[in-house]
Amino acid sequence: LSALLDDLACALDPAGLITDAAALAGFATDILGRSGVPPLALARPSSAEEVARVVRIAGAHATPIVPVGGRTGFCGGVLMPGGAPALALSLERLRRIRAIDPLGNTITVEAGVPLAAVQEAARNAGRSFPLSHGGEGSSQIGGNLSTCAGGNNAIRYGTAREQALGLEVVLPDGTTWDGLRRLRKNTAGYDLKQLFIGAEGTLGIVTAAVLRLRPGATPETAAVALAAPQAALALLRRLEGEFGEMISTFELMSDGAVAAALTVEGTRLPFATRPPWLALIEIDAPSPRLGVRSVFETVLATVLDEGRAANAVICQSELQRASLWRLREAIAVALVADRSCLKVDTAVPVSAVPDFIAAAGAAVERAIPGCRPVPFGHLGDGNIHFNVRRPEHMGDDRFRAAWPELLRVIEDISLSLGGTISAEHGIGRVKRERLVEALSPVELDLMRRLKAALDPAGLLNPGAVLSSDRG
Amino acid sequence: LSALLDDLACALDPAGLITDAAALAGFATDILGRSGVPPLALARPSSAEEVARVVRIAGAHATPIVPVGGRTGFCGGVLMPGGAPALALSLERLRRIRAIDPLGNTITVEAGVPLAAVQEAARNAGRSFPLSHGGEGSSQIGGNLSTCAGGNNAIRYGTAREQALGLEVVLPDGTTWDGLRRLRKNTAGYDLKQLFIGAEGTLGIVTAAVLRLRPGATPETAAVALAAPQAALALLRRLEGEFGEMISTFELMSDGAVAAALTVEGTRLPFATRPPWLALIEIDAPSPRLGVRSVFETVLATVLDEGRAANAVICQSELQRASLWRLREAIAVALVADRSCLKVDTAVPVSAVPDFIAAAGAAVERAIPGCRPVPFGHLGDGNIHFNVRRPEHMGDDRFRAAWPELLRVIEDISLSLGGTISAEHGIGRVKRERLVEALSPVELDLMRRLKAALDPAGLLNPGAVLSSDRG
Repeated sequence: LSALLDDLACALDPAGLITDAAALAGFATDILGRSGVPPLALARPSSAEEVARVVRIAGAHATPIVPVGGRTGFCGGVLMPGGAPALALSLERLRRIRAIDPLGNTITVEAGVPLAAVQEAARNAGRSFPLSHGGEGSSQIGGNLSTCAGGNNAIRYGTAREQALGLEVVLPDGTTWDGLRRLRKNTAGYDLKQLFIGAEGTLGIVTAAVLRLRPGATPETAAVALAAPQAALALLRRLEGEFGEMISTFELMSDGAVAAALTVEGTRLPFATRPPWLALIEIDAPSPRLGVRSVFETVLATVLDEGRAANAVICQSELQRASLWRLREAIAVALVADRSCLKVDTAVPVSAVPDFIAAAGAAVERAIPGCRPVPFGHLGDGNIHFNVRRPEHMGDDRFRAAWPELLRVIEDISLSLGGTISAEHGIGRVKRERLVEALSPVELDLMRRLKAALDPAGLLNPGAVLSSDRG
Repeated sequence: LSALLDDLACALDPAGLITDAAALAGFATDILGRSGVPPLALARPSSAEEVARVVRIAGAHATPIVPVGGRTGFCGGVLMPGGAPALALSLERLRRIRAIDPLGNTITVEAGVPLAAVQEAARNAGRSFPLSHGGEGSSQIGGNLSTCAGGNNAIRYGTAREQALGLEVVLPDGTTWDGLRRLRKNTAGYDLKQLFIGAEGTLGIVTAAVLRLRPGATPETAAVALAAPQAALALLRRLEGEFGEMISTFELMSDGAVAAALTVEGTRLPFATRPPWLALIEIDAPSPRLGVRSVFETVLATVLDEGRAANAVICQSELQRASLWRLREAIAVALVADRSCLKVDTAVPVSAVPDFIAAAGAAVERAIPGCRPVPFGHLGDGNIHFNVRRPEHMGDDRFRAAWPELLRVIEDISLSLGGTISAEHGIGRVKRERLVEALSPVELDLMRRLKAALDPAGLLNPGAVLSSDRG
């Protein structure tokens, strides 16, 4: 151990190595309060070259490495593995924006740049970086890519995967792959960057990325009150007929989710009464000349006339829009604060969302009568978070004890509808056993072969995604 | 050999195995007339299960397999490897459309379905499948995915990779991976489908795919006469300010390319005289209510007033649009017919296209004075085909002898600008030696490790993409 620390101290500047026990203790827990063991040290390299040096040194000492970004993940991917003590490797000092090319619509950033800073740099260049989610203030772009973050506008722009044109990755053997290409088309061999996106740092450490920028857009935002998920899906396809893929957000919130959000300070309902379902819809208008708002108004008026929605309002100001988004984001705030609320991250084919919500609702009521589902999320991409709160008169601890059973019931329904157990939160250390049940042996074997081919010593984030002897 | 054929004959119906020498001779050449050796037989399985059977039988006899689709590729990926005699495996009998889900915007098709048939099925369901290129009538969707086909509207819709939500793949050991998911978000482990897209059948054989459908759209199409590539790039970004990512095509054609196209029957120029550069621009309007055409007219009028374009016309009918596209497609027809024309498939960052065209033009003139560059292609995604015709008074054979030198000069310029030696045509057997020079040893090593991890016996399309001992 002390030989490892000596080597690291030689390779890094004084700010690059933290061994203080109090500081390391913070790395023993994750954002949801799960706790494990602290790392044996925290490396804070300040460049990709220093990351490579750290990986080589850790390899020479057969020490596992856990790469950490903004530590906003929900699945424990940044917790230390059990078994051999591990080195935490923070990318936070790699925060340069290396280049921006507005004419070519690309930006080249280091892994530690916060997502919100990438968005801002794009805006300052007259462009847009669309990836957006609740953790954007503190999550880092390297983590967003490594977990294939999703968020609110995947319906239009895709997930983190679709934003990446190129990557720079430090491989498990400490060599660096420079794949920082700025190309929209490239068929010169296998597309290696795809391997590292969503691999949660188990195959390599992303140190920089070339990201696609988009033209700026003016969002037109509406709130629509609906009777049922089926009506929301019908409205989505109806709007698609007018606006095609300009629809950039189609969020759906149940009455229970909205009620929870309204307990957060500064929130207000856009209607006089809470509807059974509330949709937040956004259309990214490329320019005001196209008259998107007027068509939006016409379509929503027709939908109301036909009785296909109970109420609708289009935001008339940035203030109104911010208020609607605050309501949407307050759901997550309220439910994270409710420590007994079960968090779920499944996705099904978009057409199966109404069936999923109905079946999951019935199943959790059978399992724990009186429990309160608060489904909300991304109807547009099939990713409804079917969170569940405890029954009014059940204690927190008793309900938490029922989490595994409830979660299994919901995930099984997702799987039976062709869905996934993890839509946008990844696997981390929390779902790796469940992954083994959810995937076919053929698929798991392929994943293990990839891991063995790239990281034969199993030193990169062992026990994340795939269970391992070290994990 | 005869034991292999006996086993195959037992496993397949009579139409499933072709051993007739005359029929096999057709598989010794590719669409550009390159010739190699014929396969020892042609397997024509009629289901994914039969594909798996063929792969297991070939494996048991240590016989290499070359999967073939519509055989429209330009890089010899469907030619037989040298060395051990190989079995050709055609996917043409896997041509069922297994399912279509318009509400969920997905279609599930078998590998042998022609690209144009997928487009048609989407249209019949009130949807659109946007992938489109010159070979769409005969190329098959499995081949399109395996080569990561690009085409004319990648600027808006991406390449074949971006269309795939799920795959079914027969692996080199004859097991089948069922990854036919219809999900827009999925972070349950590594995204395995990415491995097989663009791998040219070297890592597995795609037998079916789930593809994204899009809402239908009405294209508004314009021809614009421009003085230089820089003016075209400026116009692209100007239009982007109005239409954002609704721009679905931005093709650029040099005077020489247009001149070649006009020799093909049924073509006509949209202007009285040939401009130095002609752009074909298309905006996919999601619905007529948005008034895209009127804004398009206004913007083009302004651009003409400002002297930033020499001429412009917006198509007033489907007939006019078809005529413009016929001109565009006639370039490829004319240049394929010119057997001494050098075909090039590089791409650079979009912002570097003007520099690329200027530098490549100067370099080929230095190398072969009087040679005639006929650049054309996809400005919107950086993929300009910098094809070159022989000087007026040079013989075909002498010019063909200079191909390797010319190609190297052009590809080197692409690489020096951060570009690629293969944008949308893949590597096949023709560019594999060049790939070794173009990529870093780290990148090549990663590719070889993937190949070894998935196909340790090296039996799937050996010698395509990566050189191999068998190849």
